[in-house]
Amino acid sequence: MTKEQKDIEKKAAAERAVDFVKDGMTVGLGSGSTVFFAIKKIGELVRAGLNIKAVSTSDATTQLAQSEGIKLISIDDAGEIDLTIDGADEADSSFNGIKGGGGALLFEKIVALSSKKNIWIVDSAKLVDWLGKFPLPVEVIPFGYKRVFKIIDEMKLNPVIRKKNDDLYFTDSGNLIFDLHIGKIDDPVKLNEELKLINGIVETGLFINIADTIIIGRSNSSEIINK
Amino acid sequence: MTKEQKDIEKKAAAERAVDFVKDGMTVGLGSGSTVFFAIKKIGELVRAGLNIKAVSTSDATTQLAQSEGIKLISIDDAGEIDLTIDGADEADSSFNGIKGGGGALLFEKIVALSSKKNIWIVDSAKLVDWLGKFPLPVEVIPFGYKRVFKIIDEMKLNPVIRKKNDDLYFTDSGNLIFDLHIGKIDDPVKLNEELKLINGIVETGLFINIADTIIIGRSNSSEIINK
Repeated sequence: MTKEQKDIEKKAAAERAVDFVKDGMTVGLGSGSTVFFAIKKIGELVRAGLNIKAVSTSDATTQLAQSEGIKLISIDDAGEIDLTIDGADEADSSFNGIKGGGGALLFEKIVALSSKKNIWIVDSAKLVDWLGKFPLPVEVIPFGYKRVFKIIDEMKLNPVIRKKNDDLYFTDSGNLIFDLHIGKIDDPVKLNEELKLINGIVETGLFINIADTIIIGRSNSSEIINK
Repeated sequence: MTKEQKDIEKKAAAERAVDFVKDGMTVGLGSGSTVFFAIKKIGELVRAGLNIKAVSTSDATTQLAQSEGIKLISIDDAGEIDLTIDGADEADSSFNGIKGGGGALLFEKIVALSSKKNIWIVDSAKLVDWLGKFPLPVEVIPFGYKRVFKIIDEMKLNPVIRKKNDDLYFTDSGNLIFDLHIGKIDDPVKLNEELKLINGIVETGLFINIADTIIIGRSNSSEIINK
C-alpha cells in the first residue's frame, strides 16, 4: 500500500470516529499520523460550533490541537474522559494492540485508562493475526538503562535503543524507548506483566483490554468493530 | 530514642559498613541521614589514599560525595557495582524493607539491583517485626496522578501525596511521591507486584530480596546480620 492509499484509509477511519464526538464531551486525543486526521476534523467541527474539551497525549498533539482551536484541559482537571480516539501500530482480533511507534505510549495509556470508551483508528494494514511484527516499544528510565537492556536482551526480545538522528531519543517524560523486535508475541498479557515488573521500565506499548471499538479505514469505506 | 542517640547508632552502623569497602571497588552510595556518615567516612579514607569509584543515588548524595572528594561515575559507565551501602526506613527479619522516605527510591533500587552486594545500615529502631508502620513511598508519573491516587485509595492503602512546604514534592526524576499509610503489610511481595503493575506507578519503596547484609547500630557497638 502506498502512503497515499494509507492516508486515504487513515482519513476515512479518523472521520468516522469523529462521528462519536458529541457536544459537551471531554475527548482524549491520541497521537500520530492517523489521529492527525481526527484532530483536523474535530477542529473543523469546533469552528462550526461544537463545544468540547480535550485532553492531549503528547506535545505534538497539544500543538496541533491548539492550532486547530480545540480547548485543552489537563488530564487531572478532566476527571473521567468520555471518549478517546487514538491510533495503533498493530491491533489483533482480541482488541489488544501495540502502540508507541511515535513514542507517546505512556501518556496514551494513561489517557486511555482514564476514558469511558476508547476508539482505535487504523488503516487496514494495521490489523494483524498476532502482535509482534511491529517492534514493541517500552519506556525506560535513563538512569541505569544498560542494565534493563541486558535483562531484555537475555529474554531474547531483541531490544534496540531508539535514536533520533544520531542521538538517543527521549520521550515527553524524559525517558528512553527500547524497541523490541520480537516477531510474534505468543502471550501479550504475560509479556506485558513481565516487562512492567522490571525495575526501570515505566510502561510498555502493549495495550491489553483497552480498546472498545476499532475503526478500520478502507479505500472507499470504513468498518467499525465493537468488542 | 533521641536524635543524638540515633545519630550515634547510625554512625556506628555506617562506619562498620565502610570496613567492607576495599581498594579498587566500585561502590554504590545510597541516600539519607545514615548514609551521610558512611560518605563522610569514605571521604576520610579517600583523602588517606583509598582508590574507589562511586555511583550516586541522588542529587543530595552527589553533592556530598563531591564535597568529600570521592570520584563519581555514572551508573551506565560503572557496569556491575561491587558493593552498595544504603539506609532503610524499615527492615524486617526476611531482609525485606521499606525505603524512600527521602524520595530517592527509584535510583536507590536501580543501583541496588546493579550491585553484587547490598549492605543496609540502620539504627536499631528501624528493625521491625513487620513492614508498614513507616508510610510506604511509591513514585508516580505526574500526568494523570489523580487516577492513580483513586486506585490506591480504593485499595484502602491510605495514600497521601507528599508535599514540600505547600507545593507538591518532586523526585530527582520529576515524579511525585505518594506515601501509603498502611500500618501492617501482610504480604510485601504481592503488594509490591500489585503496585508496580498499576500504570502510572514507576517504582515502589518495597525492597524485596535485595539486601544481603544488615548492620544495626547500637549505642556502643554494631551488629552484622547476613542473609
